[in-house]
Amino acid sequence: MANPYLKQYLMTAGPTPLPPEVSLAMAEPMLYHRAPSFIDVYARALDRLKHVFGTENDVLIFASSGTGALESAAANLVRRGQPVLVASCGKFGERWSELSDAYGGRTVHWETEWGQKVEPAGLDRVLGENPEVEVVFTTLSETSTGVVNDVRELAEVAHRHDALIVVDAVSGLGAVPIPQDEWNVDVVVSGSQKALMSPPGLGFASANEAALEYAAGTDTPRYYFDWARTVAGQRKDSPDSPFTPAVGLIAALDVALGMIEEEGLEQVLDRHRLLGRACREAVRALDLETFGPDDENANVVTAINLPESIDGSRVPKVMRDTYGITIAGGQARLKGKIARLAHCGYFGAFDILLTVSAFEMTLSELGHEVELGSGVAAAQRVFLEAGVPASAPA
Amino acid sequence: MANPYLKQYLMTAGPTPLPPEVSLAMAEPMLYHRAPSFIDVYARALDRLKHVFGTENDVLIFASSGTGALESAAANLVRRGQPVLVASCGKFGERWSELSDAYGGRTVHWETEWGQKVEPAGLDRVLGENPEVEVVFTTLSETSTGVVNDVRELAEVAHRHDALIVVDAVSGLGAVPIPQDEWNVDVVVSGSQKALMSPPGLGFASANEAALEYAAGTDTPRYYFDWARTVAGQRKDSPDSPFTPAVGLIAALDVALGMIEEEGLEQVLDRHRLLGRACREAVRALDLETFGPDDENANVVTAINLPESIDGSRVPKVMRDTYGITIAGGQARLKGKIARLAHCGYFGAFDILLTVSAFEMTLSELGHEVELGSGVAAAQRVFLEAGVPASAPA
Repeated sequence: MANPYLKQYLMTAGPTPLPPEVSLAMAEPMLYHRAPSFIDVYARALDRLKHVFGTENDVLIFASSGTGALESAAANLVRRGQPVLVASCGKFGERWSELSDAYGGRTVHWETEWGQKVEPAGLDRVLGENPEVEVVFTTLSETSTGVVNDVRELAEVAHRHDALIVVDAVSGLGAVPIPQDEWNVDVVVSGSQKALMSPPGLGFASANEAALEYAAGTDTPRYYFDWARTVAGQRKDSPDSPFTPAVGLIAALDVALGMIEEEGLEQVLDRHRLLGRACREAVRALDLETFGPDDENANVVTAINLPESIDGSRVPKVMRDTYGITIAGGQARLKGKIARLAHCGYFGAFDILLTVSAFEMTLSELGHEVELGSGVAAAQRVFLEAGVPASAPA
Repeated sequence: MANPYLKQYLMTAGPTPLPPEVSLAMAEPMLYHRAPSFIDVYARALDRLKHVFGTENDVLIFASSGTGALESAAANLVRRGQPVLVASCGKFGERWSELSDAYGGRTVHWETEWGQKVEPAGLDRVLGENPEVEVVFTTLSETSTGVVNDVRELAEVAHRHDALIVVDAVSGLGAVPIPQDEWNVDVVVSGSQKALMSPPGLGFASANEAALEYAAGTDTPRYYFDWARTVAGQRKDSPDSPFTPAVGLIAALDVALGMIEEEGLEQVLDRHRLLGRACREAVRALDLETFGPDDENANVVTAINLPESIDGSRVPKVMRDTYGITIAGGQARLKGKIARLAHCGYFGAFDILLTVSAFEMTLSELGHEVELGSGVAAAQRVFLEAGVPASAPA
């Protein structure tokens, strides 16, 4: 149990902090899913999702984690014995490979070093070597490393090789650009609990006509995650979910998407750009390095290489237990090596400043020499130069 | 949009109304799923679920609708080309057949007439005719008709034929008895949004060792709903979900399960018995009949045969639009033929009385001759005789 007298700050890349309006929507009385008062909410949320995805496709909502939405793509597109390409660069990318294996695909798993981007040129080469691949699975924002891939270019390469491309945008959607129709991405999957400022428990899948057609020809066992079943329900005049929808979560999502609409999607993406830049400047001012390339698109989560002189696994623990600030450390092979400061969703300037200040104090406490305030100052300068108002979100 | 000045009552069998404490838990700040403050909640909810299921098994939690939990049973137990028996008696029972088909099972679908119970003697006969069946799928409470099956006897029959039995207890668990270990039910699946007084979005599956072993020998494609993956996470010292759990829903569930614990599971079941009896007495006093047999175990939802002289499809509509009371009508072949008054979860005496009174007024408005108050009086007598205090839940 966290100390109730220590003010708590959630600074992870999912679940992310909820706007109070969204929390309150969760507390509203339950609605019957077939009553007009819920159908209105559902229809509006479906419509607002299309806007955030930048698509005319139906964006399917599943009551599931983000992984459920990933699984829907595997269950609808992976054919037993048929080769598929997984282009991964971190822990979440690897999940595509596990899913493809689970569904009997002949998985060609092309791994890019963790912390590096999936390179379009490399994808071109690998697809050239595997001409029978019909589906490519990859990642927009690799939450385990902070890397954001150039999905637009990856989509172009996949299409040159006549392959569909499926993108895990669970942490990226709503933080970094992925206008699905403009970039011609066949399938984008996402989840509620990251940049969409909603509680965990909803998965989304937006598949274009080509992908839906391919799915229709795939006889892999599926029911709950079958796209055709959910498309049919959502396309009704009064949209309907084939299974009891997560009413409270959808009401919360609708409020959050309304907030994104009000701020404006472009402004939301700009805000994330600024938060990412401020975070990277702070890291630089502390004489530390981000994990992987210093990339101006890495605006979802900033992964920081921790000094080797300290016990890195203690960083998230000290920040949480001493300062009440919950960040994530490294996962799997990166355990103890990096700290991840999130800035996707309901984050503003002062979330960055307070997190950086706690990070400085934590490094100092663990014995690393830090000029206190130097990271904070660097981030402050970024915000001041951009003319951001004093309150978050900008 | 419902008229905001018309006080609203949710009287459906899922989603069911939430206790205020549960709604408020939903509005609490989001927690990081790997932080100790959430792990405490998660561990407690897992423990409390075991109590409600009456089992020592791990009760697996999925971020999904109840159907997701049903699918987990199909994905883990249905083997391609292998016969399975689906013993259904309504719309939800049919879902087992669709799931078995989707997973490539050779489905033997034994249908009992809607409104009737699945008879143990019939099951014995059908299993005798299909000796190669290794798994039986059936239903505790068939929400579409109000029927509650004798799962204890059905389990005995299945085991005499060396078959595993899987029971959909989505609407039944927490309303009518299903002590899993005592009755030796191999798999019980359920959901959050019915008698467990929580929002929709969580599915549960409790599988005993025999079922887990059988699942280990089943190579049907699965990942998200793979029991072994979730068992492994939940059995850790600090229980962990393989995918981001629906943090807010689990916090709400924990509060609801705490309330069940406080009321006492036996008292909760007694309360449902009383609510069911009061409802049936009201129906009788109105010179109407329940759909199917007048069964003292049918304590989840009361299905009422509507008078043929009225347009039955208008009943739920008038109750909702004129009186603000949301009930469900009949589904599929029962559309317009029955009304379903729910009493599973956060329901007390006065929920029944107000629903019955609105039902009387609705029948009257639709042209059916009704002695106003006669149904209410019959239900009142049941409550008075039982000595129930004036406030719900008793």
